[in-house]
Amino acid sequence: MAGSFFKGRFLSLFDYKTEKYIVAKNRKVGLLYRLTQLTILGYIIGWVFLSKKCYQETDEAIQSSVMTKLKGVSVTNTSESGLLLWGPEDYVIPPQGEAVLFIVTNFIETPNQTLGYCAEVRIFFMLCQKDKDCDEGKMVVAGNGIMTGQCLKKDENSNGTCEIYAWCPIERKYKPQEPLLTNAENFTIYIKNFIQFHKFGFSKSNVLEKTDNSYLKKCRYDEVLHPYCPIFRLGDITKRAGYNFQDMATFGGSIGIMIRWDCDLDKSSYCHPQYHFTRLDVSDSKKTIASGFNFRHTRYFKNAAGESYRSLIKVYGVRFHIMVHGKAGKFNIIPTAISIGSGLALMGAGAFFCDMVLLYLMKNGGSYREKKFEKAEITQDNTQEDEDDPKLMSSPFFNLQAVKDQVGQFILTILCLIF
Amino acid sequence: MAGSFFKGRFLSLFDYKTEKYIVAKNRKVGLLYRLTQLTILGYIIGWVFLSKKCYQETDEAIQSSVMTKLKGVSVTNTSESGLLLWGPEDYVIPPQGEAVLFIVTNFIETPNQTLGYCAEVRIFFMLCQKDKDCDEGKMVVAGNGIMTGQCLKKDENSNGTCEIYAWCPIERKYKPQEPLLTNAENFTIYIKNFIQFHKFGFSKSNVLEKTDNSYLKKCRYDEVLHPYCPIFRLGDITKRAGYNFQDMATFGGSIGIMIRWDCDLDKSSYCHPQYHFTRLDVSDSKKTIASGFNFRHTRYFKNAAGESYRSLIKVYGVRFHIMVHGKAGKFNIIPTAISIGSGLALMGAGAFFCDMVLLYLMKNGGSYREKKFEKAEITQDNTQEDEDDPKLMSSPFFNLQAVKDQVGQFILTILCLIF
Amino acid sequence: MAGSFFKGRFLSLFDYKTEKYIVAKNRKVGLLYRLTQLTILGYIIGWVFLSKKCYQETDEAIQSSVMTKLKGVSVTNTSESGLLLWGPEDYVIPPQGEAVLFIVTNFIETPNQTLGYCAEVRIFFMLCQKDKDCDEGKMVVAGNGIMTGQCLKKDENSNGTCEIYAWCPIERKYKPQEPLLTNAENFTIYIKNFIQFHKFGFSKSNVLEKTDNSYLKKCRYDEVLHPYCPIFRLGDITKRAGYNFQDMATFGGSIGIMIRWDCDLDKSSYCHPQYHFTRLDVSDSKKTIASGFNFRHTRYFKNAAGESYRSLIKVYGVRFHIMVHGKAGKFNIIPTAISIGSGLALMGAGAFFCDMVLLYLMKNGGSYREKKFEKAEITQDNTQEDEDDPKLMSSPFFNLQAVKDQVGQFILTILCLIF
Repeated sequence: MAGSFFKGRFLSLFDYKTEKYIVAKNRKVGLLYRLTQLTILGYIIGWVFLSKKCYQETDEAIQSSVMTKLKGVSVTNTSESGLLLWGPEDYVIPPQGEAVLFIVTNFIETPNQTLGYCAEVRIFFMLCQKDKDCDEGKMVVAGNGIMTGQCLKKDENSNGTCEIYAWCPIERKYKPQEPLLTNAENFTIYIKNFIQFHKFGFSKSNVLEKTDNSYLKKCRYDEVLHPYCPIFRLGDITKRAGYNFQDMATFGGSIGIMIRWDCDLDKSSYCHPQYHFTRLDVSDSKKTIASGFNFRHTRYFKNAAGESYRSLIKVYGVRFHIMVHGKAGKFNIIPTAISIGSGLALMGAGAFFCDMVLLYLMKNGGSYREKKFEKAEITQDNTQEDEDDPKLMSSPFFNLQAVKDQVGQFILTILCLIF
Repeated sequence: MAGSFFKGRFLSLFDYKTEKYIVAKNRKVGLLYRLTQLTILGYIIGWVFLSKKCYQETDEAIQSSVMTKLKGVSVTNTSESGLLLWGPEDYVIPPQGEAVLFIVTNFIETPNQTLGYCAEVRIFFMLCQKDKDCDEGKMVVAGNGIMTGQCLKKDENSNGTCEIYAWCPIERKYKPQEPLLTNAENFTIYIKNFIQFHKFGFSKSNVLEKTDNSYLKKCRYDEVLHPYCPIFRLGDITKRAGYNFQDMATFGGSIGIMIRWDCDLDKSSYCHPQYHFTRLDVSDSKKTIASGFNFRHTRYFKNAAGESYRSLIKVYGVRFHIMVHGKAGKFNIIPTAISIGSGLALMGAGAFFCDMVLLYLMKNGGSYREKKFEKAEITQDNTQEDEDDPKLMSSPFFNLQAVKDQVGQFILTILCLIF
Repeated sequence: MAGSFFKGRFLSLFDYKTEKYIVAKNRKVGLLYRLTQLTILGYIIGWVFLSKKCYQETDEAIQSSVMTKLKGVSVTNTSESGLLLWGPEDYVIPPQGEAVLFIVTNFIETPNQTLGYCAEVRIFFMLCQKDKDCDEGKMVVAGNGIMTGQCLKKDENSNGTCEIYAWCPIERKYKPQEPLLTNAENFTIYIKNFIQFHKFGFSKSNVLEKTDNSYLKKCRYDEVLHPYCPIFRLGDITKRAGYNFQDMATFGGSIGIMIRWDCDLDKSSYCHPQYHFTRLDVSDSKKTIASGFNFRHTRYFKNAAGESYRSLIKVYGVRFHIMVHGKAGKFNIIPTAISIGSGLALMGAGAFFCDMVLLYLMKNGGSYREKKFEKAEITQDNTQEDEDDPKLMSSPFFNLQAVKDQVGQFILTILCLIF
C-alpha cells in the first residue's frame, strides 16, 4: 500500500503543471497588453542588450602603468641667469618620466642666496613702525624667514619692514609678463601606457605592436589621421583642451590627458585607446583666469671655504596629469540572466497592470473578476478554519500526530514542487 | 479557408490572457501572504530605494587630480649644519606639489663625505677578529660600502670592524630624541582637488567657485565651521587622525588624507568633498609604536680641484598621502528595472511559500490542492504518450510531415505568445 | 449597507488568491520541466552563490598607500666617473620611497659640461654641407641645442655637423654592452602596503601584525615558504616575471609588482595579499627586445668664479611600479535578493519554454490548449466592447458618473491587490 502510494507520488513528480489562463476576448486590453509587452521587449533588446551591453560582465578596475618622455630644447636669456639652454633634463620635473609631470615654461632665479639678515618683502603684514611690531623669533606663515625683532626703515615717517633671518637676498616680487621658454609649445611628449584587466587576464599597450620605430620617430597624434600615434605636441594638447599654450605658459596651469580604454572583448580586436584633454585648474562653466601653477626648488652649492649658498628657482609651468580609465566587457551568463530575469519580471508587472484595467476599468470587469477568481468554497472546513482550530490548539505543542503527518507531507511536497 | 484561419489566428493575438486564480477564504494564509507582501514591499521601498538608492546608476571610477602647496618656515640649529632656515622648497619632498608628499620634521646631516676608506659602523655582522673575517670585495646588504679585506682594531683583544670603501665619514648612529623642525605643526597645506565622473560628464573642484581669494588666504579647515576650506594646519590633521604631531615628528610617520566625494547628481547641488584623516603606518587595533618613516638624500658638490664630495641627509618626517575616492549616482532606468523586477520576483517566491502553507500545512489543504491543480484527463492520448510515440519514432528522422506541421504551428504560436 | 459592503471588501483582503494550475499527465514534458528546473537551480546554487559569491556586496574601490625602501650597495668603475660607490640614496630615483621607483643599473656620465659652442652629434638630420644647411636659431626636436648657423667640417668633401650652442661637450653616443651596477640584482626592496575598503570600514597592511622585526630583517619573499614576507630580492622579482635581471639591466625595463587583495570578509580571517610580477614594456605575445628605459638627470656645480657647470647623467635601469588592486565582499541582502529574484524569474522562462513544447509540439497539444486557456464567453458585453462603447464616448469627457464609480472601485482594488 505505502509502496504504491510513494510510487504514485514519485510518478506525479513528472506530471507537468501549467498555469490556467482565462482568455478574455477584449481587444482593447489585448492590444494594451501587446503594446506593454512590445515596449518591455524593445527596452530589453534595444537598450539593455544592444546599447548598454548588459549581457557583459564588466571590469572597471583597470590597472595602468604610464611612462613619459619629453623631447625638445629651448633657450632663455635673463639678467639674473644669463643665456641658458633648457633640455628635458632641466624642464621636466621630475625627470624620470612619471604620469604626473611638470614642464617649466617660465622661471625666476634668485642666485647666490646665503643665510643671513635682510628685510622681509614689503607685504601688508610684514610692515612695521617700530621694533615692537616685529616680535623676535616670530615666523609668519606666508613669510620668508624668522624675525629678528628689528624694524628696518628708510626714514622716520615711512613704513619699514621687519628684519628677518633668511636666505638673502629674498626673491624679488615679480609678475611675469610672458613665458621665457617660448619654444615650449613645440616640445613633444611620448606617452607609453600599459593596461591590464585582471578579471579577464587581458593586457595591452597604447603603442601598437605593429608600429615600427621609424613611425614612432615621425608621427604626431591627430584625432583623425593618427589616432594611435602616442606622440603629442604640447601646443596641440592645450589647443585640444580649448586653451592657448602661450596664455597658459606665463603663469602656468594644469592639463589632464585622459586615456580612455573602452574594450569589448567579445569583439576580439576592439580595444583601442582614446585620448581626451581637459584643463584641470579652470572650471568649464566660467572661463575665469586661473591662479596659475608654480613652485620653488633649489640648487645648493658650497664655496671654497665650505660655506653653503644656493639658487632659488621659482618655476611656472604646465602640469600634465595622465589619467587612465576604462572598462572591459565580456559576455557572462550572470549579468545576462539578471537582465533577462528582471525583464521577464517586468512583463509580469505589465500583466498586473493590464489585469487592473480589465477587471476594474472595463465595463464588464465584474464578470471577468468572477471568472478569474474562482471561489474555492470548502464551506464546512472554512467555518472551522475561521475559528481557532481546536485540534491544533488542544495541546500547547499542537496535536503531535497531526503535526508529524503534516510535516512529513510538507517536506515531501516541497521536494515535489521544487523538482 | 486558410485565409480565415490566419485571420482568426491574428485576431486571437489581441485576446487578453489572464491567469486564473483560486480564491481560498483562509484568513490565516491570507494574512500571512499580506504580511509577506508588506515585508517585501517595505524592503524594496525603504531599503533598496530610499536607503541604498538602487534606482541610480553609479560611477565609482572617479578620476582625480591633486595639487598641493605648503606654507611656513622653520629654523634649526645643529652642530653639523649650523643655523638653518627651512622653507617649503627644502622641507617638501618632492617640491612640485604632488598628492604624495613628505614633510621633513627631523634630520641628520653628514656633511663633507668623500669616497675613501674607513671603518664600517659597529653593527653585529660587521664586527671582526682578524682580516679573514672581512672578505675582500664583499658587500653586505645592510652595509654602507665594499669590504677591503682589512679588520680595523683598536687593540688585540677587542672586536674590530671591517674596513670598507665608502663615502666617508660614515653616518653616525643616532636615535633622534625630538624633532628639529619644531615649528612644522604650524605649516599649512593647501589641497586642490579636481574630480571627474566620466560616465555622467560631471566635474568639480574642492575649491568652491564662489570662494574668493581673500577667504583662501585666511581660512583654516574645520569640520563644522569651515568644512569647505581647502587649507589644513598639519598639527590639526594629525590631531584629527588621533595622534600628536610632535610624537610623530621625531621618527616620522604616514598620514592618509582621504577626500570622499559622495555625489547625488539627481539633487543637482549635492556634491561636496568630505575629509577624513587616518594614520597609515599603525594599525588601529593596537596603537603600537610605529617604526617611523625616513629616507636619505644627497647633495653633491665639487671642490676647486674638481673632486666630488657630498652631504648625506637622512630625513625623518611625515608622509601625507592624499587619496581621493567616491562615487556619483544618477537615476537610470536599468538599475531601477532590475531592482523592481527582482522585487516582484521575490513576491512570487512569497506566493510560493504561502502556497506551501495553504496546500500542505492547512487542515483542508487537500481540497485546495484538488481545486488548484485541475487534472487534464485526456485519457486516450495520454496512454499513447506514455509509450513511445509510434508516429514520431517510425523513421529515424521522425515523421517529416508531422514535424513540418508542428514546427510551422510552433513558430506561429511563439510569435503569438511573445507578441 | 455601505458599511457592510466595505466590511466585506476589507475582509476579502485576507482571502488568499492562488494561481490555478492544469496538471498535464505528460511524462515527457514533466521530465523536461524538472530538468530545466534542476539546471537553473544548479546554476543558481553552484555558480551564482558558491563560485561567484553573488550573495555578497563587493567593494572594488580599494584605497591603497605604498611605501618602499631599498637596501644594498654597488661599486662602479668607469673612465669618466672613476671608482664610485652607489647606495640607495643614489640609485633609487626618487629617493623618498614611492610606489613608482626607478633603480639605476647602468649609466653614462658626461661630467664638466659648460654652456658654449660645439658640434652637434653626427645624426642624420644634423649633417651639413655648407653653412646654409644650418639655420641660425633653429632648434631640432631631437637635438641638443640651438644652431648657430655654422657648418663644422673636417675637410671640404666630407659631411660636417652644424655648430650648436649647448651644454658642451655633448654626451657621446654609446650603446651600453652590460650593466655597470653588477650587484643590483641582489638589492632588496621592502614594500609596505596599507589598504582600506571604505564601504566596509576595513583596513589592513601587508606587513602582518604578528611578524616581529627580527623576521623582517632576515626573510625574503617566497611564494611557498614565505608568502607574507614583504621583502623582495630584485633578481627574484624579474625571474618571477619571466626575465633575467642582467638582460634587463643593460638597457633598462619596466616591471609591475601587482599586489592583489581578494578579501572575503564573511570569513573574518581571509584577507591576504598575493603578489604577481609582470614585465610592462614587453607584450607577452612576442618576446621582442624592448626599447629599454632611460632618462637623464643633472647635477649643477659652480666654480670659484661663480660660473655654472654640470654633470649630465643618463641612467638606464629598471622601473618598478607597485600596483595594488583587489576587492572585498561581504554578505548583503540586496545582491542576494537580486540573484534569487532573477533566478526565480528564469524559472518562469523555463515554464514558458515547457508550455510551448506541451501545447504546440506534443501530439495532443490542442486539447491542453483548450484546457489551459479557458474562454471567458461574456457574449453580450463582448460584442458591445468590440464596437465603440457608446457610454464612454457619448460625452467628450466620458460618462462622468461611470468614470467616478470606476475610479473609486479601481483605487480600492489596487489597494486590495497590492496589500
